[in-house]
Amino acid sequence: MSRTEISKYGEFGLIKHLTERFKNTNETTLKGVGDDAAVLDYRDKQALVTTDLLLEGVHFDLVYVPMKHLGYKAAVVNFSDIYAMNGQPKQITVSLGVSKRFSVEDLEELYAGIELACKTYGVDLIGGDTSASLTGLTISITCIGEAEKDKIVYRNGAKPNDLICVSGDLGSAYMGLQLLEREKIVFAANSEAQPDFEGKDYILQRQLKPEARKDIIKTLADKGIVPTSMMDISDGLSSELMHICSQSNVGCRIYEDKIPINYQAVVMAEELNMNIVTAALNGGEDYELLFTVSMDDYDKIVTMESVGIVGHTTKPELGLHLVGREGEEIELQAQGWNSLN
Amino acid sequence: MSRTEISKYGEFGLIKHLTERFKNTNETTLKGVGDDAAVLDYRDKQALVTTDLLLEGVHFDLVYVPMKHLGYKAAVVNFSDIYAMNGQPKQITVSLGVSKRFSVEDLEELYAGIELACKTYGVDLIGGDTSASLTGLTISITCIGEAEKDKIVYRNGAKPNDLICVSGDLGSAYMGLQLLEREKIVFAANSEAQPDFEGKDYILQRQLKPEARKDIIKTLADKGIVPTSMMDISDGLSSELMHICSQSNVGCRIYEDKIPINYQAVVMAEELNMNIVTAALNGGEDYELLFTVSMDDYDKIVTMESVGIVGHTTKPELGLHLVGREGEEIELQAQGWNSLN
Repeated sequence: MSRTEISKYGEFGLIKHLTERFKNTNETTLKGVGDDAAVLDYRDKQALVTTDLLLEGVHFDLVYVPMKHLGYKAAVVNFSDIYAMNGQPKQITVSLGVSKRFSVEDLEELYAGIELACKTYGVDLIGGDTSASLTGLTISITCIGEAEKDKIVYRNGAKPNDLICVSGDLGSAYMGLQLLEREKIVFAANSEAQPDFEGKDYILQRQLKPEARKDIIKTLADKGIVPTSMMDISDGLSSELMHICSQSNVGCRIYEDKIPINYQAVVMAEELNMNIVTAALNGGEDYELLFTVSMDDYDKIVTMESVGIVGHTTKPELGLHLVGREGEEIELQAQGWNSLN
Repeated sequence: MSRTEISKYGEFGLIKHLTERFKNTNETTLKGVGDDAAVLDYRDKQALVTTDLLLEGVHFDLVYVPMKHLGYKAAVVNFSDIYAMNGQPKQITVSLGVSKRFSVEDLEELYAGIELACKTYGVDLIGGDTSASLTGLTISITCIGEAEKDKIVYRNGAKPNDLICVSGDLGSAYMGLQLLEREKIVFAANSEAQPDFEGKDYILQRQLKPEARKDIIKTLADKGIVPTSMMDISDGLSSELMHICSQSNVGCRIYEDKIPINYQAVVMAEELNMNIVTAALNGGEDYELLFTVSMDDYDKIVTMESVGIVGHTTKPELGLHLVGREGEEIELQAQGWNSLN
């Protein structure tokens, strides 16, 4: 692949080059890239705003993450936050800090991933900023979405005796990361070694190309369900449940045998001699939805594809517990990803 | 000053600690920090969105920039982009990447500066993200503002024979930076040396604690003037004029003797044997407003405090020129700050 130095373009030339293919498709986007600010028209809806900062070496490792996947994931994780409010993502801004190590082609790959994510989820790129960095790659994305005021779902609306639901499966993204880390070490020891990824495609995809659960939000709306609380699972089920319980002032019981786990993740955990339930509770980056619904919605929820009921909320004084396979109660602890430790 | 390690707080604890003093005051802010996304109500207005990424060693040097000033400036430069659309900034999100070099007290200072800026300009902090960084400090701010649709001013609306106006003075922030760089070198050679800042307070303030021109936007509105085009001057007058001229498809003539320059900046330029006009044209970070108005608004503009007419637009085929003191015409070139070179 050819290598074009970033200095060939100026700052304005580079951002123009990288973004000119993007077309705005949302009627709320009145003006995108190219002025001091983008202009949005949210006349009939509420606007939702979320932001994420991703730093090389902390949030991603370019040894095994292709630039296109990184761009896709960086965008999707922001969309996930908007879905977690029961909204629809509509616009993003993307700011990059890039060191001289990166070529224009690298950034084109990154933007190709962002573009694919935008197309897949119907989101417009409306602005951003590109500047030099002394070390590595920094990606800052802000996502704006829309929601109807009475449909927005916060973290603080759960009531005792609500059903606790989870979409998809948990722990797979974390096991995918463990696999990539293992192969990185193997490769460092022997650069002739070929990575051993057979039968691991699902957990790899969960780590490298996660999706946001737009489909779940749509099905909930189609069924007329408004969750009482919701968030996306980026730091592990334990940590997110603790947020919902503390903000809603409820306790919870979740059941070990109800936690949805994929077969490939189980196999990988066995290979690595890890506990898959711990990975599901505390592993990060699943980007599934955790939500609570009223018991009245039970009949609607049990027929929903890709959604499982993992437990229920309680009065706050009963605490937060995982009920094990033998009926034992284990207090939930947040051991989620904490990049500051 | 005491030093509290950031690891004492977790990620959530830290952001809560840093933001809990902030109170939302805008009616468009329905929900700020604390959920997957903030919720805004822009029912009657258009929303404006702008974003900036600031990297240590590239955009700021902590050797001479106090953390509180850095926070203030990081927020204000985003507000400036919203004013440059003829809007009012209303919300910001702040994401930080911080290495272990920084203490909680450092971040408290940074947020004290952000808080002062928010209070001064009536802006709510609605979200953000704090994570570890391997090297240095990264600050990413997104600002959302509001404007009435028919009052938004873009870069592309200038017509031939409009008046070109500039607020305040130009080149002072750049001369302040030169002064700080000089004193840094002096200090590196002799750590006993005391910085020589006498009679330099204005240019230092312009560099370390710039203000956004909220006042100019208000006066324009009071006088019933809607500029035909506008942007803020962050990369130097030349570079910004070239943006307006190319997006509006006009040429321009600006007059050297009309460019507003402060006395302290002139003195500093003489001391450093630099050309102050070059600094005014190409120095960055003034955060003044550059705008064009119809000739019909001449009477209203000439009576405006802190605004000078520096020239006029022309048909595009006449090009972009600076008319010197002897009447000579010099083609304008963008030599603005370009962090990618």
